[in-house]
Amino acid sequence: MSSTPRILVSEVGPRDGLQSIKSVMPTAAKLRWISALAAAGLKEIEVGSFVPARLLPQMADIREVVAHALTIPGLHVAVLAPNLRGSQSAFEAGVHKVTLPVSVTNGHAMANIRKTTGEMIQEVREIVALRNAQFPRVQIEAGVSVAFGCTIAGTVSDDETMRMCHAMAECGVDEIGLSDTSGYANPTQVRRLFRRLHAELGDRAGGAHFHNTRGQGLANVVAALDAGVTTIDASQAGLGGCPYAPGATGNIVTEDLAFMLEAMGYDTGIDIDALVAARAILAEALPGEALYGHVPDAGLPKGFSYADGRAPSAPQPEGCLLGVPQ
Amino acid sequence: MSSTPRILVSEVGPRDGLQSIKSVMPTAAKLRWISALAAAGLKEIEVGSFVPARLLPQMADIREVVAHALTIPGLHVAVLAPNLRGSQSAFEAGVHKVTLPVSVTNGHAMANIRKTTGEMIQEVREIVALRNAQFPRVQIEAGVSVAFGCTIAGTVSDDETMRMCHAMAECGVDEIGLSDTSGYANPTQVRRLFRRLHAELGDRAGGAHFHNTRGQGLANVVAALDAGVTTIDASQAGLGGCPYAPGATGNIVTEDLAFMLEAMGYDTGIDIDALVAARAILAEALPGEALYGHVPDAGLPKGFSYADGRAPSAPQPEGCLLGVPQ
Repeated sequence: MSSTPRILVSEVGPRDGLQSIKSVMPTAAKLRWISALAAAGLKEIEVGSFVPARLLPQMADIREVVAHALTIPGLHVAVLAPNLRGSQSAFEAGVHKVTLPVSVTNGHAMANIRKTTGEMIQEVREIVALRNAQFPRVQIEAGVSVAFGCTIAGTVSDDETMRMCHAMAECGVDEIGLSDTSGYANPTQVRRLFRRLHAELGDRAGGAHFHNTRGQGLANVVAALDAGVTTIDASQAGLGGCPYAPGATGNIVTEDLAFMLEAMGYDTGIDIDALVAARAILAEALPGEALYGHVPDAGLPKGFSYADGRAPSAPQPEGCLLGVPQ
Repeated sequence: MSSTPRILVSEVGPRDGLQSIKSVMPTAAKLRWISALAAAGLKEIEVGSFVPARLLPQMADIREVVAHALTIPGLHVAVLAPNLRGSQSAFEAGVHKVTLPVSVTNGHAMANIRKTTGEMIQEVREIVALRNAQFPRVQIEAGVSVAFGCTIAGTVSDDETMRMCHAMAECGVDEIGLSDTSGYANPTQVRRLFRRLHAELGDRAGGAHFHNTRGQGLANVVAALDAGVTTIDASQAGLGGCPYAPGATGNIVTEDLAFMLEAMGYDTGIDIDALVAARAILAEALPGEALYGHVPDAGLPKGFSYADGRAPSAPQPEGCLLGVPQ
């Protein structure tokens, strides 16, 4: 028997989730949440963004959050930084990984970070040079935004996305991941584009970052797994969403993703019951905020075991039985 | 260029959805809803169940509903019937197709229809004999319940499920579909089991019926498509759910499924905007009932076109753009 295949679930709730909601989570709750996520077996957490507090007050405590996360043994501490200044601060804070959001389209780049794609490529080059000169152990990932479609430009071709991926490889980033920023991706496209990313960029091909805007998140994960992707971003409770699209959730739900992967035979190292328990911190710290996910409500199925053979850590609830189901 | 591949989306909301909620939908609203679903391009609708009204008062008007559905040009009118008596009534009502729910496990069979699996196989044999003798044009599908796992028995092996599928083929049913009654299925299992169904049963291999209890519905559809499945059941607004698992929805959401299939390049013939508009009938007739789905909230993506090249029939909403997304 070959060993159980492993997938890294990269938790982005403290960054992508918290930056997308109106409430500001108190720092103490953030620290407890991140600790609970790590205790549930999550090995990489994107704990926040290095951005000006006047733009994103939710991230004003990023230094304190990073300092706390770095005390958690074995945790890979990631952050997002949109420019050289934020990257330098992140490097100095001692993070293990910086993700740089790089839009495929000019329209999205200008609206998001007020730079053209060409200017952003130049910025990435400078960030990599700084890393190489002074912080050689920090990993840099380019998160290629609107890789599957853009709310401003509409359709994005595979060639356009791959051009930006190659530009990032030439800048010297370590990994290039693909982001479905607004829920445009479909499984056919995901399979095709990640296969091409692997074929053309080899071991620089990075992870998948899907939003669940149109409910396609886990379906797209199945396609990404087929294409050889081994790192998947997700957010506890699907935290995030879009204020202009009620009910449109943010990232894919970590709880439901972890269940799917383990049921499919991929070892994630996650204890789903412990992960679900961590939602209580969110519920308390973010009253009124929608918490998404199906597994937290339905529980694990009767007879479920993890990919590595473990039994669930909590008793399994009784299922429901209705008249004449199919 | 080969022609666009087609997938039949079989709408089961008027049956599986309505039987699983407490409210009883008024007959007039049902008829309007079924007409609206057909007008949105759905070619097969399971319009109800032939079961005693004292057990499922939601289905008391089944004869009137079938009579109405049969007046809709081109619509394939399907119903569910759990026994010989219900099947005979369905045949006499003139339906095009009868689905017989057949559990893989004795535990589920006894709880659901108070018969052992052996007794149910005998019943199916009698139903097929009646059809052959008197109603030769009616199609019979066996809907194999708890094919991927059972709330009572827990894990269900592929061999157990396939044994029931072969028993159904020997009874002479036309098609054998697999149902994930309680949201136990994962994409690895779905791909494996449907491939085996096709390999062992050839053109008697039927469709996929997934519940979204654990949020895995569309992910399982991706796997089913890989295995060659061409008929997928779904329910508008994911109507249904389980009273014992709040938030655990019923069937997969037709709106989100139709979007996924069309985006993947499968022609469904569905007009998603018209389908979404039909939700208004549900909202009015079933006040307080949860209506699920992401595409109805988020709209179709900018630049979207259907698999056959059609443009969307309604204007597309503006997407949202937040600070520093990825």
